[in-house]
Amino acid sequence: MYRILFFTLIAAFAAESGGQDPEKVLRSIFENALTDTSAYSHLRYLCKETKGRIPGSEQAEKAVMYTFKALVSAGADNVQLQRVPVPSWKRGREFCEINSGNSGRERLNISALGLSEGTPENGIRAEVIEVKSIEQLRSLGENAVRGKIVFFSRPVDNTLINTFSGYGGAVDQRISGPSEASRLGAAAAVVRSATQFNHDFPHTGVTRFGEGVKKIPAVAVSPLGAELLSRRIRENINVEMTLISTCSNLPDAFSYNVVAELRGYEKAGEIITVGAHLDSWDITEGAHDDAGGCVQAIETIRLFKTLGIRPRRTVRVVMFMNEEISGTGGRVYADQAALKGELHYAALESDRGVMSPRGFGFDAEGERLKNLQSLSKWFEPYNIRDFERGGGGSDIAPLKALGALQIGYMPDVQRYFEYHHSSNDTFEKVNPRELQMGSAAIASLIYLIDIFGF
Amino acid sequence: MYRILFFTLIAAFAAESGGQDPEKVLRSIFENALTDTSAYSHLRYLCKETKGRIPGSEQAEKAVMYTFKALVSAGADNVQLQRVPVPSWKRGREFCEINSGNSGRERLNISALGLSEGTPENGIRAEVIEVKSIEQLRSLGENAVRGKIVFFSRPVDNTLINTFSGYGGAVDQRISGPSEASRLGAAAAVVRSATQFNHDFPHTGVTRFGEGVKKIPAVAVSPLGAELLSRRIRENINVEMTLISTCSNLPDAFSYNVVAELRGYEKAGEIITVGAHLDSWDITEGAHDDAGGCVQAIETIRLFKTLGIRPRRTVRVVMFMNEEISGTGGRVYADQAALKGELHYAALESDRGVMSPRGFGFDAEGERLKNLQSLSKWFEPYNIRDFERGGGGSDIAPLKALGALQIGYMPDVQRYFEYHHSSNDTFEKVNPRELQMGSAAIASLIYLIDIFGF
Repeated sequence: MYRILFFTLIAAFAAESGGQDPEKVLRSIFENALTDTSAYSHLRYLCKETKGRIPGSEQAEKAVMYTFKALVSAGADNVQLQRVPVPSWKRGREFCEINSGNSGRERLNISALGLSEGTPENGIRAEVIEVKSIEQLRSLGENAVRGKIVFFSRPVDNTLINTFSGYGGAVDQRISGPSEASRLGAAAAVVRSATQFNHDFPHTGVTRFGEGVKKIPAVAVSPLGAELLSRRIRENINVEMTLISTCSNLPDAFSYNVVAELRGYEKAGEIITVGAHLDSWDITEGAHDDAGGCVQAIETIRLFKTLGIRPRRTVRVVMFMNEEISGTGGRVYADQAALKGELHYAALESDRGVMSPRGFGFDAEGERLKNLQSLSKWFEPYNIRDFERGGGGSDIAPLKALGALQIGYMPDVQRYFEYHHSSNDTFEKVNPRELQMGSAAIASLIYLIDIFGF
Repeated sequence: MYRILFFTLIAAFAAESGGQDPEKVLRSIFENALTDTSAYSHLRYLCKETKGRIPGSEQAEKAVMYTFKALVSAGADNVQLQRVPVPSWKRGREFCEINSGNSGRERLNISALGLSEGTPENGIRAEVIEVKSIEQLRSLGENAVRGKIVFFSRPVDNTLINTFSGYGGAVDQRISGPSEASRLGAAAAVVRSATQFNHDFPHTGVTRFGEGVKKIPAVAVSPLGAELLSRRIRENINVEMTLISTCSNLPDAFSYNVVAELRGYEKAGEIITVGAHLDSWDITEGAHDDAGGCVQAIETIRLFKTLGIRPRRTVRVVMFMNEEISGTGGRVYADQAALKGELHYAALESDRGVMSPRGFGFDAEGERLKNLQSLSKWFEPYNIRDFERGGGGSDIAPLKALGALQIGYMPDVQRYFEYHHSSNDTFEKVNPRELQMGSAAIASLIYLIDIFGF
């Protein structure tokens, strides 16, 4: 009797987990990931050979072709390119010098913001006015702002433990500041880089001009440059800036998402997407943002194939194009899915760098969240414990309308903004084990969600 | 009635926590640590101005003087130097070349092991034999080994999630391998660096010769060098090595522990020690190992003083000398404590690098461990969750005999051995926020243990 019950339980368990013991499967995933060199090798290629793969660039096309082949080699059942319209913005020559009465001329490290307007070849020269917020800018009014260069100087709040919260509390200055300055007639905008770190790297990023608002030149200044500029403004009545940024907005172009599949053996019509974005800013290798995420997504396929893990559902790995500028890759992918009437079960994004894994965030509540959190027990041996509410990412967000559970991969966050959107985000800043541990964690979660559901 | 009970509870709580709300105290500790620059500035000095502070060196003395002053500035009630006998070993010129029939001469990156013997000025030349373990070496016997250079080539097991376990499983080759090779008449020993990372940095460390065993030259070879050497040995019948390492063992010298106190206001006779080691290997800035730990210990005093946190017990911050070679600093400190009949309540060591904090390890069991683990609730807002059994460190280990609870600070471990004992362990490899988060975590734990006990 007991024996029958025992075998019944074993059979139920085997059916539920596809005949495998999850503990052993996870162990094999981690062991393989930690001893295989292909992830690190892919990362090196993307960083060193496709550096600056901004949407529409040759480097971006090279990254598309490389990851297409890498996904084929990893063992995907099929790999396709999905055409994506992208904006085309090109950086030009950059120069920034301030002239304040007492201290003479001083150079600042800057980087033009994506979608900003260019200056004339010989630049513009204007007085700088400093504001700590968009609200403060508005309170100054048009008379004070017209013809000036507006300097948004509010630093990231370093007391916030989650560095993404700190970033989120400052980045409005970069995204909306230049547009708001333009509404009031400003000649240009300079924004303190949104980072916790007091170094001399400028951190670029996109800026958005409102409907009908005239585009103006807009640049990020390094944190040290921003501190110097604030000091000079405190010390002097007038600080004049010469700003050259001969960037240009070109006609829209197109590029591709790279979409690879492992077909499910049981519920092939239900799709689990694992994605990251392939584009980077033009000034950076984009190692943490987001070549590492791409490599981790590719690893899901390699690990499943190498270890003979057959998914019940179809696992789709997507290299999204144009996350950085206007998110068209994520939208095209979701639009196509809707058009084909695809069933999307879950989607995971890795776009928070490739530091040591801490856990996952789930856009779920109640019983569903509890079920997902119960999966954390399998990760105990790997010290991955933070299974929390709230997660996802901008490329998979459009899949929410199709019912896909949103999952965000959560590595440690303390270092991320030392690199983000700056030339400091290089291959050398990625530790191979931290990358590999993350690949293993992601592949493991996908495996567990596929067999246990939620 | 309820009101009386309420006030009684509040009063009990206030008495227990020294009149302060622990949640607020921890918040103030983290906020101050994350916005203060002195820790990072101390780290820069120790790395850049006292680089290579091996026991007995001028650099070590400079580090002693600097941290003495830093502890005074941090607000310690008193700071003292404690004389510590130290060995004196001096690196010389280093060169390693292999000559294998087919591939000709090739250079390898090496670093002499601490306490190893020097070669003559023009080096030694001998055939290399490779072994994967001390057991394998013994099985070869004296006839096979005499006059040869023994190459210990077992790599770290990269599938172990805890990198310290991986290190622990390979480092016997460095610590005991040369002595065992010498017993069998070897001319010298070459040891693959104990690291998970496949780079070209050699990682040094101490080697120990048994009582009466003749000291021989012994060096670490970089992981890439080790792989090349293994390949050449597989490809050729004979691989000859020319090895120069003109290091020398000099007469013992002395140096100092730096010991600073914040006197307790209630139980001054009970001591809580917070320590790290001030010495480093001679080839490195020793940023993670262990300048960062020293700086975090200093921060405990600065944070307590700055924030007006008065400890009930006496908090002792110790910069231990000579952890790397023979641990005399830790022993002298404990011997002096025993001699004075001091009561040691707890001791915490930070010697696992200064990555993002994950938690603490406690050498405790049962109810005591549970009580300590219950403190983790205060760290939830800081995502510091791993309160586990097992912890301490080699400098505080001698205090165990005096009854001190042993506590180890546990940061994330994935990256540590990319730097450990190599010239790659530089200031630039430390992220200021990860350093500061650790300082705050340590100061917070000391505060909680002092008010709540265990």
